Formats: sequence, structure tokens, C-alpha cells
Amino acid sequence: MVQAFRHVALIGRHESEGVRTTLLEIAEMISERGAEVLIEAQTAQSIGSQRFTAASMARIAREADLAISIGGDGTMLGVARSLAASRVQLVGINHGRLGFITDISLADWRSALSAILDGVYDAEDRTLLSARAMRDGTEIWHDICLNDVVVSRSSRSGMIELQVDVDGVYMYNQRADGLIVATPTGSTAYALSANGPILHPELAGIVLVPVAPQALSNRPIALPDNVEVRIKVIEASEPRVSCDMQVFGDLQVGDEIVVRRAPFTCRFLHPKNHNHYATLRSKLNWHELPILQRPD
Amino acid sequence: MVQAFRHVALIGRHESEGVRTTLLEIAEMISERGAEVLIEAQTAQSIGSQRFTAASMARIAREADLAISIGGDGTMLGVARSLAASRVQLVGINHGRLGFITDISLADWRSALSAILDGVYDAEDRTLLSARAMRDGTEIWHDICLNDVVVSRSSRSGMIELQVDVDGVYMYNQRADGLIVATPTGSTAYALSANGPILHPELAGIVLVPVAPQALSNRPIALPDNVEVRIKVIEASEPRVSCDMQVFGDLQVGDEIVVRRAPFTCRFLHPKNHNHYATLRSKLNWHELPILQRPD
Amino acid sequence: MVQAFRHVALIGRHESEGVRTTLLEIAEMISERGAEVLIEAQTAQSIGSQRFTAASMARIAREADLAISIGGDGTMLGVARSLAASRVQLVGINHGRLGFITDISLADWRSALSAILDGVYDAEDRTLLSARAMRDGTEIWHDICLNDVVVSRSSRSGMIELQVDVDGVYMYNQRADGLIVATPTGSTAYALSANGPILHPELAGIVLVPVAPQALSNRPIALPDNVEVRIKVIEASEPRVSCDMQVFGDLQVGDEIVVRRAPFTCRFLHPKNHNHYATLRSKLNWHELPILQRPD
Amino acid sequence: MVQAFRHVALIGRHESEGVRTTLLEIAEMISERGAEVLIEAQTAQSIGSQRFTAASMARIAREADLAISIGGDGTMLGVARSLAASRVQLVGINHGRLGFITDISLADWRSALSAILDGVYDAEDRTLLSARAMRDGTEIWHDICLNDVVVSRSSRSGMIELQVDVDGVYMYNQRADGLIVATPTGSTAYALSANGPILHPELAGIVLVPVAPQALSNRPIALPDNVEVRIKVIEASEPRVSCDMQVFGDLQVGDEIVVRRAPFTCRFLHPKNHNHYATLRSKLNWHELPILQRPD
Repeated sequence: MVQAFRHVALIGRHESEGVRTTLLEIAEMISERGAEVLIEAQTAQSIGSQRFTAASMARIAREADLAISIGGDGTMLGVARSLAASRVQLVGINHGRLGFITDISLADWRSALSAILDGVYDAEDRTLLSARAMRDGTEIWHDICLNDVVVSRSSRSGMIELQVDVDGVYMYNQRADGLIVATPTGSTAYALSANGPILHPELAGIVLVPVAPQALSNRPIALPDNVEVRIKVIEASEPRVSCDMQVFGDLQVGDEIVVRRAPFTCRFLHPKNHNHYATLRSKLNWHELPILQRPD
Repeated sequence: MVQAFRHVALIGRHESEGVRTTLLEIAEMISERGAEVLIEAQTAQSIGSQRFTAASMARIAREADLAISIGGDGTMLGVARSLAASRVQLVGINHGRLGFITDISLADWRSALSAILDGVYDAEDRTLLSARAMRDGTEIWHDICLNDVVVSRSSRSGMIELQVDVDGVYMYNQRADGLIVATPTGSTAYALSANGPILHPELAGIVLVPVAPQALSNRPIALPDNVEVRIKVIEASEPRVSCDMQVFGDLQVGDEIVVRRAPFTCRFLHPKNHNHYATLRSKLNWHELPILQRPD
Repeated sequence: MVQAFRHVALIGRHESEGVRTTLLEIAEMISERGAEVLIEAQTAQSIGSQRFTAASMARIAREADLAISIGGDGTMLGVARSLAASRVQLVGINHGRLGFITDISLADWRSALSAILDGVYDAEDRTLLSARAMRDGTEIWHDICLNDVVVSRSSRSGMIELQVDVDGVYMYNQRADGLIVATPTGSTAYALSANGPILHPELAGIVLVPVAPQALSNRPIALPDNVEVRIKVIEASEPRVSCDMQVFGDLQVGDEIVVRRAPFTCRFLHPKNHNHYATLRSKLNWHELPILQRPD
Repeated sequence: MVQAFRHVALIGRHESEGVRTTLLEIAEMISERGAEVLIEAQTAQSIGSQRFTAASMARIAREADLAISIGGDGTMLGVARSLAASRVQLVGINHGRLGFITDISLADWRSALSAILDGVYDAEDRTLLSARAMRDGTEIWHDICLNDVVVSRSSRSGMIELQVDVDGVYMYNQRADGLIVATPTGSTAYALSANGPILHPELAGIVLVPVAPQALSNRPIALPDNVEVRIKVIEASEPRVSCDMQVFGDLQVGDEIVVRRAPFTCRFLHPKNHNHYATLRSKLNWHELPILQRPD
């Protein structure tokens, strides 16, 4: 039987004039299908229409069973971080070039969204990570992320030294610009720039990727995603930790960052026959062949 | 309750004089504990003793419940390939520098082996891959491997072009020296030289690592280990495929290599508190810090 | 004063029907300007016209002061290898997508070539390498190359071990798939796939790039181009050496490959304001930004 | 004829008790040979002896013809930065593990230094870079470096976008953590961690190495060292530039960093038959072979 979405939220914070019109058209369509529309408060303000209910992200988290992000991958990431714990399902409509996680183009929104509202879609669960900073046994900060936890040096110091333990077993000391712990989703973000591998979203793993490691033989390592990774700051001035680039800057030497898989996942809804490899090919220019001069 | 090993095989093909003595001592100890000793036929011949039963690998596969490899990682790999389908459990004693999968030194064999025979050990199951070469719907070759399946160009031609499909979905065309499909065990072998990531043995994944890919944006990709990877030879002169470096050289353009997880795993027995990260640190020189000049 | 080209050769071995017409038009234009046209013998045969003088590459090397390659980078490489020692200057017209060293498109040939024949061009000298294989003090093979000398394992063996000395000083033993010695021109060919750096054509350097090195801390090393690199085969089955992918397969363990800068360079003529960086951007997709998901 | 050193400076800022004794012994030896000893002021204070002349770095720069750094590579870097413009020649004695540029061990100082003072040494000239930050045509900062100029993002922002021009020609826009411009000396420092190649000290080149570049096809590029590299900050919050890790943090969007080879070099004196490759092997663990499991 088809799942009915009864409370659908729309979020599109950085929208241009063109997006404004689309947002209202999307709201109309959802409304016509009998579902309640909640427009995120800032979004509502920026489009300047009182036709639909404006709602805070907290209310959306409580009430919505589907949230539609209109924007780029960055907007989608923010929405996912806010709503994942409440298990609101997500659809991403991209107003620019298609993204890794926002795979419906503005041009295709009507047919794609109709099908999804009809219950015709591929659902995909993405792992999130939770990170806590501990000082003398007390939690001083925590956050969740869809992409990555990054512990890094200040730009004023030469490097940071970190000690990494996995499930209580010592793995290594890492002297580097920083260390990334990435989910499969995050494996195509910052970690990929730092020479990390791509992890398929269905792989139950995370990957540790050092940024500019001093030990030249160091390599990214992929671990099962049910482990606890503990990262202790051994040496640094102004060390920092971030979750999806949201920075916590008040770390000190001796603090420990504890990273675990979050107790919930984030569910993305895609048009049927969603093809992750097509996204990779398109985003990563894998289709360009050959590029190097060779003798005939 | 402790598992009793009743039929224990010894294999040490490339043994030196020093190894010969140790082999006989190991055989004695096992025998004294009441288990039957089977010495692999070539091993038996090279040590020149009739004291114990010599047995073919086929007989060992049928009868042994434990096999002890005395040699390096290469010897262990060969033993694992021969015995994995029969679910003979394996112990690796290294006569040189410790290896990735042979983690008992010759100096420690007595205490380590005693404990294992007492049932005090950590068991670890390693994934194997099965590979088949298909031509016009007919299988023309098959093999299994613990490390990797490698499809590669001949050294006479400039490159090979491969088309890769995963579970029937097109992933990419790869123009490169070759493509490695590696298990977690194989991730620290050839794939690591080709810039692949390390996969923890408990991660349920495999990794595809191109060797010298023409598409500079290409990266290794880790996939769940329950997928079927299909590699079609699009362009090459004298293409080849190998399983753990055992080469099949009679491929042609149009042939497909089908790679799947083998229906059995390989069980390694380690001394208690076996520490995979300590092996990585030691083998990969991660402990050497710092190596780069920096201002004070 | 403007240099007059009096004997101009045309070479276009793999031409399609469209290229045939262009070849004849190019020949006409050169002829009308008063220079003698030499059409390389195989090229002449394939276009089937007796209107112009057909000439062997040997005769072209003796008589031509300019040679025009119509084809891709591979055709140009072959022409350069054949004519560099005779100091024939080269122009590359590409019948497909522009290459690294063939930077005039078929659409632009008339204006570009007119200017060059008028003496309006940028000249660029490219380094070549000479390689000799020595056995017991005797030369058993030699060749020259514009891209690279590659010493590599057979595809039947796991790796090759090479000892490398520079100007008589021991550098390292390299266990790998192979070792590339590349010129700046070759730095954007095979070496780039093997993770080598790009060398600007005006840098007086060469680069040694290992392919899949076992020592994970190994890195490409760029050396002044006036050094002698001596590569000794320490361990291998069926080792091979190639110059610009022309393979010599009869190496043995103990043979030494001696690589030096060739005593001549190869002169490419480009349209004025030739821009190497534009070529790099276009060929290497550097213009595609950004590609990774980031939070807004 | 042998060069006589008449004014020899000693610098060893971070010395331990053991270094203190050695410093005085070195000073005694130099003094006995008839040369004047200048001990850098802070060094003099920390060893607490009035036996030799204490001198500021400015005075050392004016008067010394040889300076001896006792410490690690970091100390040597600081000394080189201070004295290079005055063409004071340098010797590095390392109190710990040998460094890349401090290649005399504390144990060998007496014989090594005697030979050097006798004029028996290998001299090696290392390139330095000068960097200037320009805002609206006015220089707001300048510095010199022996290793590298690094333009980087703040640790609070996701990345920096830089536009790079070489000799007035546009090369690329780089979105990354940062961009390193390294000398051959710096090629074994931070740039090596960021996947840059090694440049031999006698190669007349510099190398641009992006740190974690978003364009996955981007690669380090080595250029002749007589070029002008101009790096414009296109997008960033709190961009920074550093010379040998000395940070200038007051950059703004629109500022340009102009990097050129310094008008002077830095001369290192080494014991005869100094072997750069031996240093590389030792520091980079190239001697560790083989490390990967392979079948026998």
C-alpha cells in the first residue's frame, strides 16, 4: 500500500526570485493533493506569501513526515542535520547543477514530486555520525553530522597531533593538518579532496582520512560503522572540531572527541531507479576519456 | 567449551634448514597432545622425515580441522586459497619479519600454538572472492582469491579499457593499467601500492582500485561485499586476469570477469588479543614521527 | 628577419576522408607560397594523389625544414621521434579534440598555418631522452623518446625490483609495477596517471615516477635534466623497457638502462601567444569548480 | 686555496644541558683555530658563559662569514631566514635524529667541523623565495622563506578560492584548503605531506602544491624558478599567508601574494661527499622493502 504524506515541509533558505515562484507552485501542488504545507519560517518570510502556514524547524521536526529542500547540497545538508533525529523523510530539489544528494532538477520537479507523493520512489537511508567533545570526563560539546567530523589544527600553527583509538584499542598517532571521519555521504565531500576513497552509501562503513599527514605511508582506513572512534588532542595550539563544517573552536590539548554512528539514519527519497553511479560519473567527470597523449 | 583440533596439518613449502627443525618440533608437540599430524607432501619430502603422515593438499582439505602455515604471507595465501572451501581453520607462523596475516613469530610459536590448541584464541573470518571469466555466456576460467582479482593490460600495450557494472548497473569505463578488486585482506597488498584505502577485516566491503587511471579524477570506491562486479574487456591487446597473482592470460576483448564474494570465508586463528592496528603500524611504518622539517 | 620554410613535409598517417581533403588543401597552400611540399610516403598512398612529391621519413629528415603532423598527439609523437635528431621543426594540427602538443584545430588550420609560414609564431624547444640498454658493458638496444622511458614488470609477474643510480650515486631500490622517467612533455602522459607532477616545458628537469610502488612513502622525484639515470634490473621475470610505448622486451636481470637527455631538442611551432596553462585547464578539467557538496 | 672563516657564529636556541657543553666545546675549538666566535645573544644567555662574545642576529649578519646552527631542521630554517640575505654560510649540527638540512650528528661534530674549517666541504646553494602581499597596489607585508609560501583558509571556513597567474598569464582558480609554493628545500617539508613531488636541490624549479583541492584532477605543477607567481584571494573568510610557517593573518579578499625567487641564495656547507639521496632514504623510510604481502 502507498504511504501518504500528510504534512509536507518546504525549505529553501537562499532562494532567488525564480526559486520563489517554484516554491509557491510546489506548495500549491502539495496542497491540492490534500496534504498540509508547512513553509519554514525564514523561507516563508523571504517569499512574502501568507497563503501557507509558516513553521519553525522545531515544529517541522515534530509535525512533518516529508521535507523538501529547494537549493543545493549545502541546504540539504542543513535540513538533514535538523530533521534526521525526528525521522522526517527528505527530498532534494536542486536549483543549480545537480548535486550528490539533491538529484531532482528544478526543471523536473513536477513529475518527480508527483511520483514521490504517489508513493513511487526509491528510499535510501544514510548514516549520520554523532560527535562529543569530552574534557576530564565531562561532555563540553556535541553535534551530529551527515558528512564528516573534522579535527584540525588552527591555521596559525603548523600541525596538530592526534591519538586515535578504535573501540578502546590504540590505532595511531596522527600528525597532520587534521583528521576527517566521514560517512559514505561525506566520502564525496571534503574527504575526497583529501585523497579519501568513495564509500558506497550502502556500505556499512566510515572512513578516517588524514589531511596532509606527516607520515607519508599513512593511508585512509575504512572501518565498520558500529565502532567508537576516540580522537585525543595530543599537541596543538587552538585545535578545532567541526561537524559538517559547523566549527567548535574551544578545544584544548587533552580533550577527546568521541565519534559514533548516530542512533538514527536520514532517509532520502529519490525518483525510481535512482542511480548513484550516474551521479558519481557526472559530478566527478569520470566520463571524460581519454585525456592523456599516447602514441597511436 | 573448548574446541579440540584432532587433525592438524603442517605446511611450509619454502623452508630453510632452521625451519625444518621447527617443523618437526611443532609436529612433535601436536602429536604429544593427542592430535593426528598431517604433513603436506612436498613439505614432508623437503624435511626428509618419515615420522609423520605425509598428505596431499586434497587430503588435508578433507581431513584436517586446523592447518598451520610456516613461512611468509605468500605461503599463507596459498594455503588459504587451497583450504578455504573446506573450512579448514588456519594459523600462520612467520619465519621472517611478521606479516599482515602471519602474526606468530618463529620465536613465539610454542606458547602461541599451545594456547591455540587449548582453544584460547581469537578467530577472524576473512572474505574471499570468486572470479569467473565468461565468453559468449560460457565460463572459460574461474578461481578464488583472498587478496584480489586484477584485470590488467599486457606489458606490451599502453592501457586497457574496461567497462564495469555493479549489480547490473553501469558504473564506469576505466582506461588504466588495470583494475583491482580487493577484499579487506587484499587492501594491504597490491591495492595499497595503487593508492587504495585500507579496509578493516570486519568491514563488509570490497574496494575497486584502478592502477594508473587515465581519468585523473577517478578514485578508489568501496562497495558492500554482497554485490556482483562485472568487468568487461572493451579494448586491449593480450588482456589478463589474475586471482592472488595467479594469472590467466587467455582473455579476449569482449570477455567478462564476474566477481562475487565466495560462498565461504577463511578462518584465521590468532593468539588472544590479536591487534590488527599494531600490525598496520608495524608493517606500514606509521610509528615514525615526525619526518618532515618544520620550524621550531 | 623572417625565416623562410622552403621544404615542408606533411604527415597524417591515420587520416579519415575529411582529413584527406584538408591535407591536399594544406599542400596547395604551401605550394602556392613557393615552398616545396613533401608528402610522407604512406600518407601520399592513402590520399591517392600524385600531385605532390612523396617522400620517405628518411628523406623528410634530410630535406625538410618544417614538418606538419595532421592527427592526434600520438601521430605528433611519432613524427617528433623520427625527425628530432635532424632538427626539423614541427607543427601539429589536430583532427579531433585538441591535444597537449597538437594545438591547432582542423577548423583553424588556414590562418594558423599562414601566420607560421610568415614567420609569426612562438617556438618551443622540448627535451628528449635517449635510453640505452646495457648488458655486460655492451649496448643491446637504444632509442629516443619525447615522453618517457618506462621500465616495467611483465604482466605475468607480481613486480619488478630496480636499482636506480643518478650520476653514479645510489638513489634507491624500487619494487613496483615499473618506473617512469619522464620529460616535461611526458609529465602529462603516463606519468600523470601514475600520480606524477606536471613539469612546465621550460623547466630543465625530468621526473622519476614509480608505478604502484611497494614502499608507500615513495614519491616522484624531479631531477635536473643533465643527469644520467641508471636503472638496473635486480629482480623480475620478463622485464621490459619502452620509449614512448615502443617496447623492447628482451631485457634480463642484471641489464642496465641508461637514460640521458638527448643531444638535440625538438622544436614545436605554435601560433603566437600559445598558452600552455590554457591547454592544461582544458585537457585536465581544472575549470570544473566546485564539485563537492559543502554546507551553504 | 682554502677559504678561511674568520668570524664564526654559533646559534642553538633550544638547547638542552647536553647541547650546552657541546656548544662551549665547539666555541673553544673555533677559538683555538684563531677565528673569532660570536654566540647569538639568547644562546649565550641560556648557556650562561661570558667566555665568548655575545652578538645579536643583526651583528652576526653583518660580521660572520660562517654560522653554525646546533639544533634541528627548524632551528636551521630560522637561522637561514635571518642570515641568507647577508650571505653568511651555514652549517647544521643536529642534536637529535639527523634532519634534511642538518646533516652532521652531535657525535660527529668535531671531525666534520674541523674539515669544514680547513676548507674541505661540499657547498650547496639553496633557493629562497620572497613573498609580498599587495593591496590596491601597495605592499602590506613581505617576507622571505627557504621552504614555502602558503596561502590558506582560516580553520573556521570551508575553503579558500585563489586565482593564480604565472608571469602575467592566468593558470587556474584553485579551491582548496590552501596552496603551497615550495622551493626544492621545501619540497620535503609541508608540500610532501600534501602529495607534492620531491625536487632535487639542484633543479632550478619551484612547485605549486594545492592542499585538499576540490578539483580532483588537479595536480602539483613544477615551474622554472625564475617566474613570478601571483596568487589573488578570490573568496575566503580570514585568509592567511605564511613564509616558513610565520603567519601573516591580516589578508583580505582581493589581496595578491606575489612570489619570486629571492635575489640571493643560502649556502649550506656539508662534509665532503654529502649524499642527498642517502638523506632521503633515511628520512623517508625508502629502505624498508618489501612491505606488502604477496604470494610466494
